[in-house]
Amino acid sequence: MNKINEVAGKISLLNEQLLKDAQQRLDNLTKPLGSLGRLEELAKQVVGITGNAKPQLKNKVIFTFAGDHGVTAEGVSAYPKEVTAQMVCNFLNEGAGINVLAKHAGARVIVADLGVCSDLKLNPKLVIKKIGYGTKNMAIGPAMTKGEAEKAIEAGIDIFENEFKNGIDIVGIGEMGIGNTTSASAITATFTGKPIADITGKGTGIDEKGLENKIRIIKKALEINKPDRSDAIDVLSKVGGFEIAGLCGVVLAAAARKIPVVIDGFISASAALLAYHIEPKVKDYLIASHRSVESGHRIILEHIGLKPILDLDLRLGEGTGAALAIPIIEASIKILTQMATFKSAHVSERNG
Amino acid sequence: MNKINEVAGKISLLNEQLLKDAQQRLDNLTKPLGSLGRLEELAKQVVGITGNAKPQLKNKVIFTFAGDHGVTAEGVSAYPKEVTAQMVCNFLNEGAGINVLAKHAGARVIVADLGVCSDLKLNPKLVIKKIGYGTKNMAIGPAMTKGEAEKAIEAGIDIFENEFKNGIDIVGIGEMGIGNTTSASAITATFTGKPIADITGKGTGIDEKGLENKIRIIKKALEINKPDRSDAIDVLSKVGGFEIAGLCGVVLAAAARKIPVVIDGFISASAALLAYHIEPKVKDYLIASHRSVESGHRIILEHIGLKPILDLDLRLGEGTGAALAIPIIEASIKILTQMATFKSAHVSERNG
Repeated sequence: MNKINEVAGKISLLNEQLLKDAQQRLDNLTKPLGSLGRLEELAKQVVGITGNAKPQLKNKVIFTFAGDHGVTAEGVSAYPKEVTAQMVCNFLNEGAGINVLAKHAGARVIVADLGVCSDLKLNPKLVIKKIGYGTKNMAIGPAMTKGEAEKAIEAGIDIFENEFKNGIDIVGIGEMGIGNTTSASAITATFTGKPIADITGKGTGIDEKGLENKIRIIKKALEINKPDRSDAIDVLSKVGGFEIAGLCGVVLAAAARKIPVVIDGFISASAALLAYHIEPKVKDYLIASHRSVESGHRIILEHIGLKPILDLDLRLGEGTGAALAIPIIEASIKILTQMATFKSAHVSERNG
Repeated sequence: MNKINEVAGKISLLNEQLLKDAQQRLDNLTKPLGSLGRLEELAKQVVGITGNAKPQLKNKVIFTFAGDHGVTAEGVSAYPKEVTAQMVCNFLNEGAGINVLAKHAGARVIVADLGVCSDLKLNPKLVIKKIGYGTKNMAIGPAMTKGEAEKAIEAGIDIFENEFKNGIDIVGIGEMGIGNTTSASAITATFTGKPIADITGKGTGIDEKGLENKIRIIKKALEINKPDRSDAIDVLSKVGGFEIAGLCGVVLAAAARKIPVVIDGFISASAALLAYHIEPKVKDYLIASHRSVESGHRIILEHIGLKPILDLDLRLGEGTGAALAIPIIEASIKILTQMATFKSAHVSERNG
């Protein structure tokens, strides 16, 4: 666990003085005090994270990681597991939701195979860091070994570091993996202690009977594996997924590099939850893009203490919510850096 | 009231067949059914409004209208009334919040003086359609004559029509007018029948004592003027504002031209409320950008039946919320028109 500890050890607290300076600047802009609400909070957070009084969010990168899940053998998803690989091809052909929304936001998408079941066709746009051909069925035993869990996190760190050379100012995290809401639910139940039935949703769209089965399978996986919530690697290895582990690595690496991390939906939030339990300082680097339809997502955000920017009933994943929210975060920075002050614009301040 | 009736008469119901076709296309895209939530609803609405199966939102225009309010004599605002004119200059110098956010969204801002107290310096970027030098104090008598109210709505129609020649695909409405939350509250109380205390907020930031005074003044204005809720022009003339009337005209003109209208905060919502009471078909053309901190805003949205896109504790006005939401509406259209279908991307559809 050397590389993971090393990266986690580099994550620092936000710069308090810069936060205060940013607040002061915001209060001098030509608008009633605090009238841009959460936009002002976002601007401050990005200043505190980057350690830059006038940050620019030029290089926006969405990491969309894919992996398969052995637990699909239990009928937990509405879609066949082949869809994971097919959707990776769709990402590479730029036909998926994340492609459209990332392009709209001016963001690059880095697609990586952390553990898809089949060998994907080589493509210069595809990063291959396959830890295995899908996880094992967690309803029977651990999804992966502890060594694999660590390797998958390290793969995420490496993918981030490699792309960091091309410039990254803000990161979004997203995923694709048939069956991965089942894994995210098990991770969430372990860390938060909330009832499985409250956490588990319909994922890509199973029916009521399917939902009952999914809850039963998660319960079984937790009983058989007994993940230890004080050990994030243990939880990840027993009920996690390769793509989730990789995204956990991205979160740690980004925070260590003072880059804001925008969480997408339930699965990427479970990756952030793992990173948070490895190093709680991660929290200040996280921005929740939206509140998913999946109830477990809300439970994670409350557990970490994050307030979502959007509430649009999304449940697609891939990083789509992050891609929608990044322009709003960018807008908040432009408010901070481009608006006139009362003094510069010769506008009278408030009475009394 | 000829021009107003003429424009209102051109507002038609949305194209039902196109709405159905759009739903079918959305359901064939490579994503679980309905998984892009409100984004899908927005795309459909824009298709239905424009009557175009593949609309483009290229020309985005924010109309930011300014006007002064005689009721400021009663001490209802935290800022001196000179700020209205000063902020118009700030708009023209591109230093205000709306300038920054509209630029970020790729939108043009049309700034118009519908009734600022003073004569503003001539500027090719400023549209001057002054109906009066501020309204009269509505706590003593009507804010304006019925003739002025009609003229102000018609001015808004004219400003829209003039800009329409340069191309408009989507409209945002915003305003600037010290004292205008007092007017918006009185309009809202009249149409919704809700208690004045529930509707009235702190505007730009008055204290508790100021809020009590504001509520008292609104009550007085309604008692003295007795606006007739069955006659929108009567309401507007008695407790409205010139900038509010102008925006009401923009809403009507845009809907008549099949252009989506994005409402900003409480005051622009009160303009939409007036338009809705002139012609209820307006409703389908309205998109609520956000939920303001001002409680009256929520009451208007519920009254008309609109669900806001953003909930960011904004209370600035100017059209800032509209500027933030327009890129999300644009994203919804790109989802509809740019994503691959299951068939085109060779992705398996759901089981069973």
